[in-house]
Amino acid sequence: MADNTTVTVLGLGAMGSALASAFVKGGRPTTVWNRSAGRDAELLAQGAVRADSVAEAVRAGEVIVAVLLDHASVHETLDPVVADLAGRQLINLTSTAPEESRELARWAAEHGIEFLDGGIMAIPPMIGQPGSALLYSGSQTVFDQQRDTLELLGSTEYFGEDAGVAALYDFALLSSMYMMFNGFFHAAAMVGSAGVSAEAFGERAAGWLTAMAHGLPEYGRVIDSGDYRTDVQHLSFQKAAVDAIARASTDAGVALDLIAPVKDLIDRQVAAGHGGLAYPRTIEELR
Amino acid sequence: MADNTTVTVLGLGAMGSALASAFVKGGRPTTVWNRSAGRDAELLAQGAVRADSVAEAVRAGEVIVAVLLDHASVHETLDPVVADLAGRQLINLTSTAPEESRELARWAAEHGIEFLDGGIMAIPPMIGQPGSALLYSGSQTVFDQQRDTLELLGSTEYFGEDAGVAALYDFALLSSMYMMFNGFFHAAAMVGSAGVSAEAFGERAAGWLTAMAHGLPEYGRVIDSGDYRTDVQHLSFQKAAVDAIARASTDAGVALDLIAPVKDLIDRQVAAGHGGLAYPRTIEELR
Repeated sequence: MADNTTVTVLGLGAMGSALASAFVKGGRPTTVWNRSAGRDAELLAQGAVRADSVAEAVRAGEVIVAVLLDHASVHETLDPVVADLAGRQLINLTSTAPEESRELARWAAEHGIEFLDGGIMAIPPMIGQPGSALLYSGSQTVFDQQRDTLELLGSTEYFGEDAGVAALYDFALLSSMYMMFNGFFHAAAMVGSAGVSAEAFGERAAGWLTAMAHGLPEYGRVIDSGDYRTDVQHLSFQKAAVDAIARASTDAGVALDLIAPVKDLIDRQVAAGHGGLAYPRTIEELR
Repeated sequence: MADNTTVTVLGLGAMGSALASAFVKGGRPTTVWNRSAGRDAELLAQGAVRADSVAEAVRAGEVIVAVLLDHASVHETLDPVVADLAGRQLINLTSTAPEESRELARWAAEHGIEFLDGGIMAIPPMIGQPGSALLYSGSQTVFDQQRDTLELLGSTEYFGEDAGVAALYDFALLSSMYMMFNGFFHAAAMVGSAGVSAEAFGERAAGWLTAMAHGLPEYGRVIDSGDYRTDVQHLSFQKAAVDAIARASTDAGVALDLIAPVKDLIDRQVAAGHGGLAYPRTIEELR
């Protein structure tokens, strides 16, 4: 049976456009709106309908998907049309922080709007492709009723009624991604000092980091246990390695902005007498 | 044709023992030495021969493999036997920094020793198994002549006559690994604030980071080009995301030690007018 749920997408940045395109390709009547003009030519050619105002866009959809710049822009865009939103389902895929998502959930509840928050674990070209994953929390009604539509975007997972949890997962995963990317930049700058191409190094680093990422669940198990005793590669060993990396970075003309905090966290633990414990104990310095 | 190259391994820590075992299993007559006694029982049972002094060990091998604690211990061990080393091939697999490897190459050249430096991208149980990769630089003669023997340890790659380059690669890859691990600790602390198990989160983070690592060669291509213009997800967008991650970290009770430097690098670029450029421009702040 065809699902004719009408969907409105607010915000046609790279991500909003990718989401709208997936809805159109999935057969959903899709209305699009963007603050500035000229972003919708390809979507209109695919069959989307342009709305000239936010109010018109909101009135055209049973489900309103917001993919805006940030939390402030969600309010700027939606506060003026709150009467039109009442009784509709709002799915916020804007990258809002957990507390911001919770604030939006309270605001929506006050105005009779059903609210689901989501985090997108994909970049725009991945939307609707294998590997795209979206995390949701907030209204279970919205999640259950719109699940088929949401699965047009990627795999879905629901984390409960607390609207902030999906964003917490999202932000946690993003934080780990940013640190991995920055680690790559630091490393590429090191080998770049010897004339090595960053693209060639990127191939090697991708394979290496993928292999090393296999160890994360085991690190997690150790963290959950709270037992950081170990026979191999304890923090004193890591200190020697990271001290040497910092020296090698300086020798290669690479700034210590990113490796210094890694070194500081290890140094602090060794100074506090934890040098014989395992590396994942580092998490205790952060919380 | 059997390769009867005689190999000496100096240093029987976990890594040295794994290397010696791979040489023995590969049919190379192998002599082993360690500063302290009692580390060689299993190797002797496999067929290795014990040397009672460094000089005796060096005289027994055409190829001398040093797997010691650090740069200082290489000199402490080898300076007294430099006359015995003359005319032999020395392969340093001790974890020495690039400048230290270059110093050893100069020292070796002064004493008529052929010198190859290597970095081991594996942990001891991986030696001789699929996935073990070793990077070499220094004497091409040594690399070419001993390649069959070195391939007993893992895949090999040669990076040219500059003895420091293999170590530079090694340290660069290690630095990216440490930053990825720390990013995981930060992220696990964030979701831990909502009661999520670090092991379960580790499974998700491993998949997510593996998917994101696929983008590193493309980031490298952009870095090599020096052209950071982009239509999508420019630094101003990353600034909004990382600012929100920092706020969410604070809300979750997670210290900013690791995310603050990521934020600072982005803030600096946006303040300098680069907000419209692509994220990999971050590398320019480091070199």
